[in-house]
Amino acid sequence: MSSAAADSAAPSGSVETVPDVGILRALLDGRWASMRERARDLAKDPRFAVEIGEGVEAQREHTLERLLALAEAGHSRLGFPSRYGGANDVGGSITSFEMLAMGDLSLLVKAGVQWGLFGGAILHLGTERHHEKYISKLISGELLGCFAMTETGHGSDVASLRTTATYDPDADEFVIRTPSTAARKEYIGNAARDGHVAVVFAQLVTKGESQGVHAFVVPIRTSDGSPAPGVRIEDCGLKAGLNGVDNGRLYFDDVRIPRDNLLNRYGDVADDGSYRTPIENKTKRFFTMLGTLVQGRISVAGGAGAATKVALAIAIRYGEERRQFAGPDGDEIAVLDYLAHQRKLLPALAKTYALHFAQLALVEGLHDTTPDLDAPRDADPAEHPGRRELEARAAGIKAAATWHATSAIQACREACGGAGYLAENRLPGLKADTDVFTTFEGDNTVLLQLVAKELLTGYRDHFGELDLFGTARFVTDMAFETVVERIGGRRILQRLIDAAPGRGNEEDLRDRAWHLALFDYRESHLLETVARRLQRATSAQDPFAVFNAAQDHMLAAARAHVDSVLLQAFVEAIERCVDTAERELLERVCDLFVLSTIEAERGWFQEHGRLTAARSKAAIAEVNALCGLVRPHARTLVDAFGIPESALAAPIAHGSEERVEAAAR
Amino acid sequence: MSSAAADSAAPSGSVETVPDVGILRALLDGRWASMRERARDLAKDPRFAVEIGEGVEAQREHTLERLLALAEAGHSRLGFPSRYGGANDVGGSITSFEMLAMGDLSLLVKAGVQWGLFGGAILHLGTERHHEKYISKLISGELLGCFAMTETGHGSDVASLRTTATYDPDADEFVIRTPSTAARKEYIGNAARDGHVAVVFAQLVTKGESQGVHAFVVPIRTSDGSPAPGVRIEDCGLKAGLNGVDNGRLYFDDVRIPRDNLLNRYGDVADDGSYRTPIENKTKRFFTMLGTLVQGRISVAGGAGAATKVALAIAIRYGEERRQFAGPDGDEIAVLDYLAHQRKLLPALAKTYALHFAQLALVEGLHDTTPDLDAPRDADPAEHPGRRELEARAAGIKAAATWHATSAIQACREACGGAGYLAENRLPGLKADTDVFTTFEGDNTVLLQLVAKELLTGYRDHFGELDLFGTARFVTDMAFETVVERIGGRRILQRLIDAAPGRGNEEDLRDRAWHLALFDYRESHLLETVARRLQRATSAQDPFAVFNAAQDHMLAAARAHVDSVLLQAFVEAIERCVDTAERELLERVCDLFVLSTIEAERGWFQEHGRLTAARSKAAIAEVNALCGLVRPHARTLVDAFGIPESALAAPIAHGSEERVEAAAR
Repeated sequence: MSSAAADSAAPSGSVETVPDVGILRALLDGRWASMRERARDLAKDPRFAVEIGEGVEAQREHTLERLLALAEAGHSRLGFPSRYGGANDVGGSITSFEMLAMGDLSLLVKAGVQWGLFGGAILHLGTERHHEKYISKLISGELLGCFAMTETGHGSDVASLRTTATYDPDADEFVIRTPSTAARKEYIGNAARDGHVAVVFAQLVTKGESQGVHAFVVPIRTSDGSPAPGVRIEDCGLKAGLNGVDNGRLYFDDVRIPRDNLLNRYGDVADDGSYRTPIENKTKRFFTMLGTLVQGRISVAGGAGAATKVALAIAIRYGEERRQFAGPDGDEIAVLDYLAHQRKLLPALAKTYALHFAQLALVEGLHDTTPDLDAPRDADPAEHPGRRELEARAAGIKAAATWHATSAIQACREACGGAGYLAENRLPGLKADTDVFTTFEGDNTVLLQLVAKELLTGYRDHFGELDLFGTARFVTDMAFETVVERIGGRRILQRLIDAAPGRGNEEDLRDRAWHLALFDYRESHLLETVARRLQRATSAQDPFAVFNAAQDHMLAAARAHVDSVLLQAFVEAIERCVDTAERELLERVCDLFVLSTIEAERGWFQEHGRLTAARSKAAIAEVNALCGLVRPHARTLVDAFGIPESALAAPIAHGSEERVEAAAR
Repeated sequence: MSSAAADSAAPSGSVETVPDVGILRALLDGRWASMRERARDLAKDPRFAVEIGEGVEAQREHTLERLLALAEAGHSRLGFPSRYGGANDVGGSITSFEMLAMGDLSLLVKAGVQWGLFGGAILHLGTERHHEKYISKLISGELLGCFAMTETGHGSDVASLRTTATYDPDADEFVIRTPSTAARKEYIGNAARDGHVAVVFAQLVTKGESQGVHAFVVPIRTSDGSPAPGVRIEDCGLKAGLNGVDNGRLYFDDVRIPRDNLLNRYGDVADDGSYRTPIENKTKRFFTMLGTLVQGRISVAGGAGAATKVALAIAIRYGEERRQFAGPDGDEIAVLDYLAHQRKLLPALAKTYALHFAQLALVEGLHDTTPDLDAPRDADPAEHPGRRELEARAAGIKAAATWHATSAIQACREACGGAGYLAENRLPGLKADTDVFTTFEGDNTVLLQLVAKELLTGYRDHFGELDLFGTARFVTDMAFETVVERIGGRRILQRLIDAAPGRGNEEDLRDRAWHLALFDYRESHLLETVARRLQRATSAQDPFAVFNAAQDHMLAAARAHVDSVLLQAFVEAIERCVDTAERELLERVCDLFVLSTIEAERGWFQEHGRLTAARSKAAIAEVNALCGLVRPHARTLVDAFGIPESALAAPIAHGSEERVEAAAR
């Protein structure tokens, strides 16, 4: 801390006692703390040390070795049923996955492809015959697989995939076909080099009729590693990052697979070609299938958060050591003592905390709404109470967490100047590797669109529409639905407002009840006005034009919803903290999250009469004040993430040159 | 265009006639159009084709080959005097450099190091003996050099460099010394592999007294390429991007150089060790020396703009071809027809136009304030009328252009989804290569700080202070200075307001006079209030605390100033366009730049009573409307940049798969 800052009297809201890193860490670690500790231990294994500057082929080879080492260490067991060698612990599985993102992000993504997407599809879309045949082998890495959903021509719009799987009753086989270049499977992880089978999503056609998208297990390589007959494989080549993952393109030229290779949980074909399904509505069936894969989005959100934490830890450690320009007393000033530097990093740190707590709640929600993997399977998992709301929440948090990773890691890079541009300091890799997170596992804009639609229509009752643009029914039912949807959320909110300290002090910019009410107002108002706007549209208007004119409004509503979710999760986490100094610090971090969000949205709040000009200006000043209050604890706050030292191998995170210089003075 | 959009009646402000790409291009090409045409021709040479995925060593070798090919093509002559083989054309030189940024950005930066920084230092800081000895050799590439200013411990604060050059009168030599690890020269381009000499910035010490930072020519390699005696060279290794540039670290262990190797234009040492200088004031001398190097910042701003244009051209071409989700009529909709997609790309395109026109004016300003390189040299170049204002403007535009590059290229990457993540589609390289632009050639935050200080104090009269933090004098003189400083700018502004059409129509969100006045109000008010705020500080307060509390306010003032500069440049450019359809389109693009800036700053405008809530909401709606108006011309607007086809080698810029799919329908 600069002498200047130390001289001044403690400002209001200072955290006087030194908060304890261990207490904060326990709170952050949450329910699966033991998984985090295991991951920290595993990170000490030199096989997982972060490598810089490997060539693409070496990196792919190395990533595969690590994948197998991870399997050996038991990581891959977590999310699978015990009877196939799994550990039946969904929450632990996602927590363990999240921790991987502090190290090698190519390993994270390759593990996600193998066990999350490929393994998840076998588990959730397949039935016992598939489980028996594949799960123990895929856990061990003996069988490496791909998740072949995206096509060149269809990424976000998965329902419109062009690949076909046509049943041939004479041979009792499906025929998999890529009808055009645009229908090739694109960006498929594990495809270019290592995968032997792929779960291929294709339009199931039987008896001349299409039954919509289903998943099929298709061998893509023979035992010697060459492409299977009829399969063409291309390498996607160099990418911005994640070059340890072998992404490829797959083309199928009438590839024949046994009928049994259909993952038949939600739809099956008898040997005569007749189609049966437990979910008659085609759209509902499709969304139910996709819903079982929500784990992927939650995992990406967690991974984005973990990578952001590493970047912030590096930038904050460097910002404390790095000095530039002499102050009035002649001593050079630590760059983190400059307000502009604090503003680059500390609001981002506060939002990282908010996202972390929201993520903890999301993982708990997933764990608790996923049926016991060891129990006999019965109902549709999407029917679990709260499951659909969880899916929407996962979409929103995934979008927020990954966009935050992009902007926060960028801010960290810039805050470290030229040093931040050197690969050895990890920020370039963190940036490049996480960049694609905003557009894979669901493009963020499309995901927010889905959040808005869920909030607006409670779309469970609208399984008749697949498109994004709405219909007459979409529009007319909306107002009622909006009210219905928000009842559950309001109850929690009211409890939090009632429990918040300092309630009713309208002058206080740190009044938590005011924060909660303000965030809620923004969400409610945006939702209600967009609903009214769509209702006003008449059937004479072009539905696309109506939708499109309101698109930015819908996205704003979804973002406002996510902000509310983050704030509520933060407030609930603080409630769990019983230790005074740590709770006090978290209150200030939460204030900083709230005030910097209000600052960013102050145009809107003024437009809607929720902030006067004077109070809006005061909010900006309050962000500055909070930056000053949080700054002395910035190191504590990043230490509390419990990032393994091996993940902080960046020379600038250890400040050696700066210390040499300081010692020489 | 979607059928939906085509069906609706032309909205107000539609550009009815088809604008001509050639007319727009001529306007954009500006005074050095012939240089741009030469660069476009040169880009057809297969030696300059964009390569993807080369290893670091191959890329360095290839970049060097291209550098020499560029010299052979005459590119390097432009910025040097005729008598040494130059072409005496500063504006042409920067324009030609800017065009390089559409292709290989490593080549751009290596050329910038060799001819801009190293060559520029020899030219501007050296005298005839240095010119004779080095210039023709450096133009041809026979002599490759480095610009060794930054140290590990001092980047932004160049005045505090620790490297020393101590005069030894017995040997008539300077002794160059790196006193600590923090004093090593850091990130030095051309140092790790190719450079044979370096211009080293060091504290000149003679007769036991330091005379401040001066530049010295120091051999760093012997003719066989090994480090010169006493010189230690390290490789900075892999970077986020620009890996064709061999950045290194230099350590000097009492390296002896002849006295003549001092670049002695602004300070010289006689053989007895006595120091002479044409500029007695040490600080003024230092800033004069730095001022001659302003060309580097202008070049970076131009390079950032060119790279942004390439990214936008790729994303917009793809956005027109790529279709996703079927509309009400069953046809899939081009993604650029979605409002959310337009909002990602079109305001960024509008700002790119604004920055382009500001850059044209900046290059003209530099050219016209740089003394004829062929004329005998006399006065201090910084004394040219308008030169100091130009330096501040260059700093502000560099910051704005490079931050815009970072955010716009990121938006383009996301707008292209997974395809944008593949190296073959160029966006990863454009992003990674330009990322460092925001922090090299002056960290953007520090540059904006300097802009604010220039605006506030007219710091030409304050050469007594080197630090950023201000002094009593800084504070007390401010109000007067502020008024004085703004007189020149106001005259131009008033002329533009008087010339603007539709003046006085307060209801019209596209009223140009209102735009100009609004931007000016924001700048003036921020400057005046920050001046008053600093004036209120008393001498009892810690100057750092005073400075720091106002830092965000100062930066906001600087940003507001740059926005005004951009708008004025855009309006002046439109004045030069006499063709109706093209002018009409440019008016809409300018509207979009203005309204999206107002939208982003609408919190501030409401706080200061310049926008009512209703008008603020209307501004948002107007951005949407303008996106719709500009969208049909998006392709024309990027085609007008005249990007060589070789720079658009990205497969997605040619939409083959999409067209295959469309043809199959």
